[in-house]
Amino acid sequence: MQPVLDYLQTHRGRFVDELCEYLRLPSVSAQSKHAKDVRATADWVVNHCRAIGLKAKKHATDFHPIVTATTPKRPGRRPHFLVYGHYDVQPPEPLHEWNSPPFEPTIRNGAVYARGATDNKGQHFAHLKAVEAFLKTGTELPCDLTFVIEGEEEVGSESLMKFLRQKKRELECDTVVVSDTGMPSKKHPALTYALRGVAAMEVTVRGPKADLHSGIYGGSVQNPAMALSQMLATLRDKKGRIAVPGFYDKVQKLSAHERKQFKRLPYSETAYKKLLGVNGLFGEAGFTAIEQRSARPTLEINGLTSGYQGEGSKTIVPAWARVKITCRIVPNQQPGEILLLLKKQLKKLCPPGVRLEIEEGHGAEPYLVSPTGPQARAALGVLREAFGHEPVILREGGSIPIITEFKKVLGADSLLLGLALPDDNLHSPNEKFDLTCFHNGAAMSARLWPALAAASS
Amino acid sequence: MQPVLDYLQTHRGRFVDELCEYLRLPSVSAQSKHAKDVRATADWVVNHCRAIGLKAKKHATDFHPIVTATTPKRPGRRPHFLVYGHYDVQPPEPLHEWNSPPFEPTIRNGAVYARGATDNKGQHFAHLKAVEAFLKTGTELPCDLTFVIEGEEEVGSESLMKFLRQKKRELECDTVVVSDTGMPSKKHPALTYALRGVAAMEVTVRGPKADLHSGIYGGSVQNPAMALSQMLATLRDKKGRIAVPGFYDKVQKLSAHERKQFKRLPYSETAYKKLLGVNGLFGEAGFTAIEQRSARPTLEINGLTSGYQGEGSKTIVPAWARVKITCRIVPNQQPGEILLLLKKQLKKLCPPGVRLEIEEGHGAEPYLVSPTGPQARAALGVLREAFGHEPVILREGGSIPIITEFKKVLGADSLLLGLALPDDNLHSPNEKFDLTCFHNGAAMSARLWPALAAASS
Repeated sequence: MQPVLDYLQTHRGRFVDELCEYLRLPSVSAQSKHAKDVRATADWVVNHCRAIGLKAKKHATDFHPIVTATTPKRPGRRPHFLVYGHYDVQPPEPLHEWNSPPFEPTIRNGAVYARGATDNKGQHFAHLKAVEAFLKTGTELPCDLTFVIEGEEEVGSESLMKFLRQKKRELECDTVVVSDTGMPSKKHPALTYALRGVAAMEVTVRGPKADLHSGIYGGSVQNPAMALSQMLATLRDKKGRIAVPGFYDKVQKLSAHERKQFKRLPYSETAYKKLLGVNGLFGEAGFTAIEQRSARPTLEINGLTSGYQGEGSKTIVPAWARVKITCRIVPNQQPGEILLLLKKQLKKLCPPGVRLEIEEGHGAEPYLVSPTGPQARAALGVLREAFGHEPVILREGGSIPIITEFKKVLGADSLLLGLALPDDNLHSPNEKFDLTCFHNGAAMSARLWPALAAASS
Repeated sequence: MQPVLDYLQTHRGRFVDELCEYLRLPSVSAQSKHAKDVRATADWVVNHCRAIGLKAKKHATDFHPIVTATTPKRPGRRPHFLVYGHYDVQPPEPLHEWNSPPFEPTIRNGAVYARGATDNKGQHFAHLKAVEAFLKTGTELPCDLTFVIEGEEEVGSESLMKFLRQKKRELECDTVVVSDTGMPSKKHPALTYALRGVAAMEVTVRGPKADLHSGIYGGSVQNPAMALSQMLATLRDKKGRIAVPGFYDKVQKLSAHERKQFKRLPYSETAYKKLLGVNGLFGEAGFTAIEQRSARPTLEINGLTSGYQGEGSKTIVPAWARVKITCRIVPNQQPGEILLLLKKQLKKLCPPGVRLEIEEGHGAEPYLVSPTGPQARAALGVLREAFGHEPVILREGGSIPIITEFKKVLGADSLLLGLALPDDNLHSPNEKFDLTCFHNGAAMSARLWPALAAASS
């Protein structure tokens, strides 16, 4: 193992130069003007993988290409791990808010600033550098590795979802390793073991056939905006609990171990309130803010629309009112079941004089892997060694749909070993990737394969 | 009196021709492309008033001119009545929904179809024809009359409000007569004796400094749209009563006489529901729909705005949510007092974690004149004679701000003797004025002056 770690140490400077070359490519998947750049970036990845000794291939899709790269074929049966990443990046706008141009990588204060630095080029590049170290030092890898690096993560990963099904046989693996999440600080390397899912719905309350003059008719007819407000108001009680019958029935309780681990996470209420710009927090009673935002289900109003919204006033009883709702769901809630419960409750709440129209939106299942299983334990040990600090375990509040696809299609759990710091400005101007996280990430990756192979056999 | 009534009978055909000439002028006060037409219409009114024997004058204002026309000066003191009307009309759009062009008056089924036919050219023209009958037959009028016919009613009457103050001395009068309201049917001539006022407010609930990712932060922070919904929900109880402390304190109770009179009004719940396009009605318990929409105060949501309103979904906790509210108020509620009560209650309801911003909007006082006083009794008698049916008394749910100005500035009550039928399409395509209402209106006006003079002396 030592030659691998030495190699990583020796070539740090070159690794950063290569990463900067990668970051110079404006692979914005959402903007058609960058379609050529996206293809050029896929080619760059293929060539780079080949240069470090992997067998790489670019796969055409209906939209942006997918790159796969595998370690050289050897006889015998070894564990097979998949490393997932994406070479596409978020749009860089607004450009005037960047301190240095988004596609001219700049090193400042031990970090590289560029669009895509941490999301996700820098993070999967650390894994590539670890494999390079094995291959270039002739150190035997105790496993087979397949990198799957896609170009549509920022626009929905649709091609990859198809690709997983088409290449199911080749991609079958013991575990997926993903560095696309965060860590609370450089002193808190982290394993993310759960993600929330989502269930979306749009509800329209329809009253009179047209907006009515509130002087002539107001007082004798149900106001759809008031009816909607009264329905919505009852969906959450004073203690912040969602008041939809059955909503919590399938929620898996947080274990004592998890709650104890969450207490170790750095958190300051003052700093958190300042970050959000609020004078007070509000959430489900009986849970900490960290638990509320990552491990508990929610029902949020995302938008309200009704009647006149322009300047001044318009004295009408609006014909209709609409709300957009998304629930964040946790294991073992299912999006379809949650939408059904919500629908049932809304129908029950709907007063006479108005009609309800409900449109179901997108859904994503929550994700959970045991934070105390052998693979998680192996990952935690490796994080400790690579970062020199006791690692933490995290649940993340958002959803990464591809992770549940890996489970569904390939039958494999994912180890989420994120290298992003809270101030890395993902999806915002001045995105950066800390070089300590980069180098420690590469060392972590190098140590991971023997540990994971041992845990998987 | 008989020569006057005979004159009105004899010249019916010419009156309709003249009204059509008046209706051909596109005096749309809101559209600058019609500014010249508006001025031409004022000139037409001045010339017409002079032709029938009145002393008429066009008064320039900051916007559209006001026309005044007075009966010839005679020695001695007589009651002085003011007749109010407006020569400006609503925009005619959407043009393709008209069965005949809006400014090409057409007679169909005993009605004249044109923009402004009933609102308000036809209605005040009936009063002009009555005066013409007195002047042309040499019948002595038992009162002095001043017509005030403005050109900004459809855009807020701002110039007239100033004009009343400037010409207070000349305009001082015993009573104002206005035909700009409605009657339930040709068999139900009507005196409107009360109008609702209005009090407007815009409330913004502000939470986090920007829209937040509902996955990352949702569950730990107050959602402004939910906070607003929960506040709004409590403002109206299950019985349709406004649950703002003190809201009803100043409301003058409906008298037994009024409620009995309202029962005489033609009303079909089935027809009313069909008109509004609702499957059920909703209003304050203990009151009929007619009372709810005309004689009881309301609190209506006119508009809701929050977060994402576009297609599909956006998983955010919105930074803010906004509601537009107007209360319709009744005697003796005051707009300022009602806004104060509402403000106080909203402040009390506002939960921690969000901030309240309240902007007061426009206000208009409610209006009420006794429906059993001598002038009202005189008007009811005249309505009975002119239409051949027992008249009804009405409250109207809307507001006519100029009426409270007449009271405030000139100290005069208004008799609202409306000639519009419910299907006259005011402010809509295919506006019409029924010729029976026109001719009966002229006869009513002729009979009114002796009766009113007797009641006022």
